[in-house]
Amino acid sequence: MTRPLIYNAFVTNNLSHIHHGAWRRPTSQNLGYNDLATWISLATTLDAGGFDAIFFADTFGAMEDHSGGWRTSARHSVQFPAGDPLMLVPAMAAATRNLGFVVTGSILAQQPYLWARTVSTLDHLTNGRFGWNVVTSTRRSEARALGLDDIPSHADRYAQAQEFLEITYKLWETSWQDDAVSSDPRAEGRYLDESKVHEIHHRGARYRMDAVHQQPPSPQRTPVIFQAGGSPIGRDFAARHAEGTFIAGHDPASAAAAITDVRARARAHGRPDDDIRFIQGMTFVVGSTEEEARRLSSEVDDDLDNEAMLAHMSGTIGLDLGAIDLDAPFEEFTSDRTQGVIRGLVESAPGTPKTFRDLSRWAWSQRVVGTPETIADEIGRWAAAGVDGLNIIHIETPGTYVEFIDHVAPVLRARGLMRAAPAAAASAGAETTDDAAPVTLRERLFPGRGARLPASHPARAVLTSP
Amino acid sequence: MTRPLIYNAFVTNNLSHIHHGAWRRPTSQNLGYNDLATWISLATTLDAGGFDAIFFADTFGAMEDHSGGWRTSARHSVQFPAGDPLMLVPAMAAATRNLGFVVTGSILAQQPYLWARTVSTLDHLTNGRFGWNVVTSTRRSEARALGLDDIPSHADRYAQAQEFLEITYKLWETSWQDDAVSSDPRAEGRYLDESKVHEIHHRGARYRMDAVHQQPPSPQRTPVIFQAGGSPIGRDFAARHAEGTFIAGHDPASAAAAITDVRARARAHGRPDDDIRFIQGMTFVVGSTEEEARRLSSEVDDDLDNEAMLAHMSGTIGLDLGAIDLDAPFEEFTSDRTQGVIRGLVESAPGTPKTFRDLSRWAWSQRVVGTPETIADEIGRWAAAGVDGLNIIHIETPGTYVEFIDHVAPVLRARGLMRAAPAAAASAGAETTDDAAPVTLRERLFPGRGARLPASHPARAVLTSP
Repeated sequence: MTRPLIYNAFVTNNLSHIHHGAWRRPTSQNLGYNDLATWISLATTLDAGGFDAIFFADTFGAMEDHSGGWRTSARHSVQFPAGDPLMLVPAMAAATRNLGFVVTGSILAQQPYLWARTVSTLDHLTNGRFGWNVVTSTRRSEARALGLDDIPSHADRYAQAQEFLEITYKLWETSWQDDAVSSDPRAEGRYLDESKVHEIHHRGARYRMDAVHQQPPSPQRTPVIFQAGGSPIGRDFAARHAEGTFIAGHDPASAAAAITDVRARARAHGRPDDDIRFIQGMTFVVGSTEEEARRLSSEVDDDLDNEAMLAHMSGTIGLDLGAIDLDAPFEEFTSDRTQGVIRGLVESAPGTPKTFRDLSRWAWSQRVVGTPETIADEIGRWAAAGVDGLNIIHIETPGTYVEFIDHVAPVLRARGLMRAAPAAAASAGAETTDDAAPVTLRERLFPGRGARLPASHPARAVLTSP
Repeated sequence: MTRPLIYNAFVTNNLSHIHHGAWRRPTSQNLGYNDLATWISLATTLDAGGFDAIFFADTFGAMEDHSGGWRTSARHSVQFPAGDPLMLVPAMAAATRNLGFVVTGSILAQQPYLWARTVSTLDHLTNGRFGWNVVTSTRRSEARALGLDDIPSHADRYAQAQEFLEITYKLWETSWQDDAVSSDPRAEGRYLDESKVHEIHHRGARYRMDAVHQQPPSPQRTPVIFQAGGSPIGRDFAARHAEGTFIAGHDPASAAAAITDVRARARAHGRPDDDIRFIQGMTFVVGSTEEEARRLSSEVDDDLDNEAMLAHMSGTIGLDLGAIDLDAPFEEFTSDRTQGVIRGLVESAPGTPKTFRDLSRWAWSQRVVGTPETIADEIGRWAAAGVDGLNIIHIETPGTYVEFIDHVAPVLRARGLMRAAPAAAASAGAETTDDAAPVTLRERLFPGRGARLPASHPARAVLTSP
């Protein structure tokens, strides 16, 4: 069944997210990451172009596994520096109408009570356009920055994340009743009915809290929850909590397999198949002919910085690729962690890489190269395999998104693979030249199902337990 | 010596900061605290009117000492709800040019490494217009929200604040050299010189950290530091760290005494008299005649909510004023904490209150009632006593500030007590219709002394120690 997909811009608050080296291009505005005007301009472009959300990845510690530790990553600006992405959202929200904002927040870094307050504030200020990508942090540099010796074990981190989410669910969903705030405060002479505001008491293995939530119910109450677990425990966590999850398939069939696996896990938590959106990472190089597209793609390769790409891979794998033989077969790397990460990389890489040399030019993303028509063909194949949306990785900002909006989006719309742009939606409407009324991010992802968490979400079990 | 003072708007991210009940006025926009448009409109008004900064007080736990605990404060919206004020800054910054943003951040709530990243991000995004009001938190509700039994002792909190500041000074001032970022990254082919970026290692009683700061030097590096200690240990802390501190004098003479005390303490830390700005809280009711002003002030009194004002006082004193005889003399309250707080209140209250009944209508602020001319006279007296600036408390937003800008500011400017408004500054200039180039918040407070911490600031001692 052909249906419109979800289209997100996938970015970081720094100059180099994934295509390291491309920030040097004369047309790239990535160097302007500490300038609000850069972000407001990008957000209004995405909003007018019909994108669903801008999605901020984030880590708060340098990658430090490649030749010489963090200095190699720093030299090549591999996700370093890294500004706080949350600080970009309010300015972009004020300049846009429909665009959603998904920000990565680590349960290791945040304090649940205060994070709940910050998120509710943002959900109010964005009129319900906020989403939270839940991560647990994986870098030792992040642990040491917070005064820990190392990152807690995988199981410990997910147990902490589970408890963190339970606390925030309680604050967002149950501390204030829907009708606690007066519908006409001046006439009633009071803003709220305090008998409809409740203190939350939490006692758990890692957290204790006795507090009233500091914000009345925001449009979505709980922000849209994203999670990107790749490991079995991570997938199970996503199946339990996520409303949007990432898959890194190397082709539509492998994406379909990942979707089937997470859906089966979700069913075990009582969640219907339609409760989770599956988002694939992808990037595009658009040409007016196949030949032009291939030439442009080859220019991207030329602009990439080999050592930076390797440093990024070292940081992800936890193995110093500067200190090994890049042509050694993967079988020689036998630690549990390395094996797991290599398996994940090989699954999402094009071709069948057998060595790190094979992987080294691969830019952490499916790169689709072609004309608008052949790109739309490819997106159609992923859609047919069950993918619900794309996190579009940029080669440069705003160029990658402008190209997509100007050239690919019209073809996708003609095929029913992308919703009408805001202006087109308005002119298709009857009497008004205004756009349709904005909806929350949750309603964009799940049209017609309301702004709040569905009754089938396992948060309900937390909230109705004594 | 007559000189321009600093004028700040003193606000909270909620509907009722100090003049509880006045949010009901038909002209008040305080109910719009969860709407970005409200804040952007206020910020542009202040910026065009020549205000120096908008100053956000903040607490993240409800006041709970008055008849029935937090529900009494909640019923009257006494600083409850309380949204995250930091989330308002980026949207206001994008819409303004000169206005500074000072936000209260508690060292009990924040994690120093991540707070440093957030603040540097904001100092970049605001072009150096960010200030931090350092607080240690004082409410039990805040402690319990964070999983503590109670707020740490006064001495413990200030020791923690000292260590917190040391960590952030190191990150802001020494992790990146000034020339670490290339002046022409594209031409050089690299963004930064990693040999000029340094890992910070901290080992202290309360914190441990090994990390590289995640942002290059922002315009001010360290934000402008504000602190409002009233106790002897608090005053000493302010004398050591603050570039702006609050005084709550009940008349110019008592303000002068407080200034003399803090200056003496500052000298002991090697700081010259001109390194600290003293900011007095004050509110204004402006009339075209004295009689009109008195009538308007009486209307303010009528709009205030007695129980809310008492609940606010209970929350500050830590004594349930709903459970005591309001006419009992202060001598009957003998706990150390209560005595200290009462002494502070009596010092800053008008008249010589002897009971809580005497204090109960007093709205935590000097209220100056008069014509623009008599108000300017009064401000002149405070300036002559050594006060450097005013935190102007609102009765309602934006009304209190619009009145001040429209009616009082022109008189203050004619007397040299307020800087020219941005537009006036431009027309006074020569060839250009642009405003003078914006400067950082630190340069607004200390004109001509540069954007960075002065060499006389004790942070230098931390930073040059081995």
